[in-house]
Amino acid sequence: MHDREPTKVAILVFDRFTALDAVGPFEVLARIPGVEVAFVAKAAGPVRSAMPAALTLQVDVPLEGCPRPDVVVVAGGPGATEAGHDTSTQDWLRACHATSRFTTSVCTGALVLGAAGILRGLRATTHWLARSQLEGYGATVVNERVVVEGRVVTAAGVSAGLDMALRLAQLMAGDQVAQAIQLGLEYDPEPPFACGSPSRAPAALVEHVRARARGARR
Amino acid sequence: MHDREPTKVAILVFDRFTALDAVGPFEVLARIPGVEVAFVAKAAGPVRSAMPAALTLQVDVPLEGCPRPDVVVVAGGPGATEAGHDTSTQDWLRACHATSRFTTSVCTGALVLGAAGILRGLRATTHWLARSQLEGYGATVVNERVVVEGRVVTAAGVSAGLDMALRLAQLMAGDQVAQAIQLGLEYDPEPPFACGSPSRAPAALVEHVRARARGARR
Repeated sequence: MHDREPTKVAILVFDRFTALDAVGPFEVLARIPGVEVAFVAKAAGPVRSAMPAALTLQVDVPLEGCPRPDVVVVAGGPGATEAGHDTSTQDWLRACHATSRFTTSVCTGALVLGAAGILRGLRATTHWLARSQLEGYGATVVNERVVVEGRVVTAAGVSAGLDMALRLAQLMAGDQVAQAIQLGLEYDPEPPFACGSPSRAPAALVEHVRARARGARR
Repeated sequence: MHDREPTKVAILVFDRFTALDAVGPFEVLARIPGVEVAFVAKAAGPVRSAMPAALTLQVDVPLEGCPRPDVVVVAGGPGATEAGHDTSTQDWLRACHATSRFTTSVCTGALVLGAAGILRGLRATTHWLARSQLEGYGATVVNERVVVEGRVVTAAGVSAGLDMALRLAQLMAGDQVAQAIQLGLEYDPEPPFACGSPSRAPAALVEHVRARARGARR
């Protein structure tokens, strides 16, 4: 980290990203003193999140406007596959990773890191529905919500970005800063059901969600 | 609910809203089959979230474009005070509440509902730092993360919008739909610290965050 210059966090989004994948970490990381967070995308301008209901985020910074972020967060979403095939996105990611303090992903953002070769030989995680796809990139996929593998940090599906960002806040700025952010966001979760991961959910529910995801990809 | 027409959810945002207050519920509610979610604001166009680092959400629907939503979600944030004083926002909220199935808030969004007189005599919650302010609107503030008081539903600070939205999904569409959404978002939280609410956090941390918030308002 620099003593005077702000620490730069770049959150990469793309057409059909998952909104919460990006905004969860944003809300946490933007609260670290001395940190500047920017959303970056292939081109500046409006970027639409995934359907069915999309939101539109105004992105001010194109990839080339953010060449050396200290921290990269790659969001996931249905558009992650295209982002994994996009040359300029992949080149940017690899260049960032050469100098970043942390290179991170939420949900299927891990597939974008995987496509860039960044997860080869590393322990990593992703959305539970994308685990086998991530193994195809040479990652050792583990059943953990947040995986810290040196400076490569991956999170499980969507909401896991919050837990990951708080871990990053801890690693970047220490316990007290991370705890103050957690209390400021009143993050004392009470999920209504005990079904938030496939290892806890009833098998029938897991199959139901899996079948619907398969249908959506067709 | 209607048999054929989509159920309309309006998420009210305003200048200096808190991004996660709005996007957490968005990500959940948009996944309920037959539901259409729109962000609404006083005027269509870009709406900036709260500092220090702001994101810009492109809002397509002005208040008058969404006169009778089935569900209203009011986000919180530093701009909530102004929204509570804005006549057109307040008139819109009161008109919506006359016919809504659910009128809801996240974080200091409760202050906007309170200013509209909607919480008078009801049990409600808000961000822990705003509890006494909410009592000023005649609400009975309770120490719960999500308060369902008939068709008025309020959530505690920022991240509590996720828990609230899953409860709403359950009330609107049943257990199975809500559970599938929770699993789809892999919402099996693992906060790194046991300090997400003032009743669990060490007193010194609570005082630290309270003092900083006081400083920010100056």
